[in-house]
Amino acid sequence: MKHVAVLGCGNWGTTIANLLATDIDVSIFDNNVKMYVHETELEFEGKTRKLSEIINNLHINPKYLPDVKLSENVVAVTNFVDLKNTDVLIVCVPHQFLHTVREVYEVILKKEELIVINLAKGLVFEEKLSTPSEFVSHLINKKCSTLQGANIAHEIANKVVAETLIGYHDEFEKRIFKSLFVKPYFQVKFVKYNPTIDVYGALKNVVSFAYGIIEGIIESQGKENEHDKIVFGSNTKVIVLRRGISEILKFIEEEGYKGGKELFLETCGIADLIVSCEKGRNKQCGKMVCEAVKSCQSEKGMLSDILEEKFNGQKIQGMDTVKILYEYLKSKNRQNDFLMIKMVYELLFETCDLSPVYEFI
Amino acid sequence: MKHVAVLGCGNWGTTIANLLATDIDVSIFDNNVKMYVHETELEFEGKTRKLSEIINNLHINPKYLPDVKLSENVVAVTNFVDLKNTDVLIVCVPHQFLHTVREVYEVILKKEELIVINLAKGLVFEEKLSTPSEFVSHLINKKCSTLQGANIAHEIANKVVAETLIGYHDEFEKRIFKSLFVKPYFQVKFVKYNPTIDVYGALKNVVSFAYGIIEGIIESQGKENEHDKIVFGSNTKVIVLRRGISEILKFIEEEGYKGGKELFLETCGIADLIVSCEKGRNKQCGKMVCEAVKSCQSEKGMLSDILEEKFNGQKIQGMDTVKILYEYLKSKNRQNDFLMIKMVYELLFETCDLSPVYEFI
Repeated sequence: MKHVAVLGCGNWGTTIANLLATDIDVSIFDNNVKMYVHETELEFEGKTRKLSEIINNLHINPKYLPDVKLSENVVAVTNFVDLKNTDVLIVCVPHQFLHTVREVYEVILKKEELIVINLAKGLVFEEKLSTPSEFVSHLINKKCSTLQGANIAHEIANKVVAETLIGYHDEFEKRIFKSLFVKPYFQVKFVKYNPTIDVYGALKNVVSFAYGIIEGIIESQGKENEHDKIVFGSNTKVIVLRRGISEILKFIEEEGYKGGKELFLETCGIADLIVSCEKGRNKQCGKMVCEAVKSCQSEKGMLSDILEEKFNGQKIQGMDTVKILYEYLKSKNRQNDFLMIKMVYELLFETCDLSPVYEFI
Repeated sequence: MKHVAVLGCGNWGTTIANLLATDIDVSIFDNNVKMYVHETELEFEGKTRKLSEIINNLHINPKYLPDVKLSENVVAVTNFVDLKNTDVLIVCVPHQFLHTVREVYEVILKKEELIVINLAKGLVFEEKLSTPSEFVSHLINKKCSTLQGANIAHEIANKVVAETLIGYHDEFEKRIFKSLFVKPYFQVKFVKYNPTIDVYGALKNVVSFAYGIIEGIIESQGKENEHDKIVFGSNTKVIVLRRGISEILKFIEEEGYKGGKELFLETCGIADLIVSCEKGRNKQCGKMVCEAVKSCQSEKGMLSDILEEKFNGQKIQGMDTVKILYEYLKSKNRQNDFLMIKMVYELLFETCDLSPVYEFI
């Protein structure tokens, strides 16, 4: 009987814990799917309550996935010790908190046969640049698989038909993942593990952020716009998209990641990018830039803080990824070879106005 | 002094004639840009008037581009004889009418130094499959360049920033096109001519049509839907998009077209596809499928007619392209290798219901 645990209770973590718990195959897995919750208190129905208690008693996560009734066998735990039986660990925390996997691994007593799969998006830059699955793997000296795809969380939570991609290491893992993840509405394709899968998951957020910025500019056109002579529209938005894609592929090639072109045609590539540009949190955040630019004109450098605040504590991965990417590229003096990354970075962390966009277009 | 003429007065033809006429370089070109209009009478301000007269007297095209004031040097002509001085011919008719280029060429007295550029999208299947520029070239035994890009016509007409791609044959042509087409809001990239550019222009319409179908299904969900248990959303739309892209690239490779992967990253490739999926006429038409399916359930095979009617006589290229592609593939018994093309074809011309979509997903 294998024990399954999800590390993280954001909207994606909660969604995936619920997906795994629903109709879980009890001939293979323990019925309960544990979800590690970073405990917090919140106002709920007039009372101050603990998040884990609401999840376990009322089977909803009011903070990150308020509209979805969770399966009763999603069990919130708040202490790493409660994860000690874990056989399959699903990592679904913002990449800033990936280091906690090391602590969990100690608690699991460094179980030899532990299966780990990463669902986090982003990049880590400590000495060298790593994808989340590479970073986790390095932390615990153990293989880490990855799942990435065009998977807007609240849609998956509502059983909307979607496809995803799992990069697995061996046939045993593949069988386990198949039993766990495949659902009538969740089509899973399996390929041999490749860190490039995660690179798409990280870089697409920079492009969708930039795409959102253009959308914000389009919507505010005609109001107060110093660049009023230059008109943006759908034709302009796809200029950003196209150049963003070229930049992703260039980055993948120049950094020596393999299989970029084939993986671009999988759901982790073009499909995830497009759905993020249509509906993702980073695009929405990019869209807010115009408004935020106005409110922080006197306090340069605050733009990123304002945006994070608006998202109720949820991490805006694209913002963090662009910072990491820019710092990484700058450390190699290559920042001028990636003009979209540079444009988003300058806007967020330097000029705090839209001039980098007009320069880029 | 070179004379420029646009063959076609649809929304793209009118837009491009207006773009060329605005600030035309009179050191190289005659001031007037002729636009061949297939004459028609229409009700306008309470009177029955000829389209060409409205264009020449009031400088608008009420039929295809009603909201845009045209430059006064866009001159509508209704007889091929009026094109006899033409030095640069811009072909912008639906691909069904491309054969008229032969007649125009006779009128131009088969001018040796005539420059021809195609802006039409679609494919022709007569004995063999041709792109519009290949077909024109074959008709008049003369090189034909091509212009394709993410260029929603009414946005270009309103000077929205856009980029386009011209596939040219020689340096002289390139200089002429540069003087004619480049505008502050219209960024033109030049590459050596390649029919693959046109193949993207044709096939993207099939994908955006399919994308629109899914969007129509999403919007009608919960109303009357025999497939109510299967829920579609943004995650599902990009399944169609992703498979569509794979199918385009497969078609290009298997048909022996060159440079597919590089051109996919140009505006004629991914950007044109995405903007068509967001805003294009074929996507809108796909979206109407759900409604139309209901109204023609008793008269199978009428779906395509209903859809064309709704678009006020404007050709829905994606519908025609899918028919040509399917017939071509069927003639080689390869229709089962292209499941998206097959899905759209069956829906439009065979089942006249949504079952092919659910089978495809």
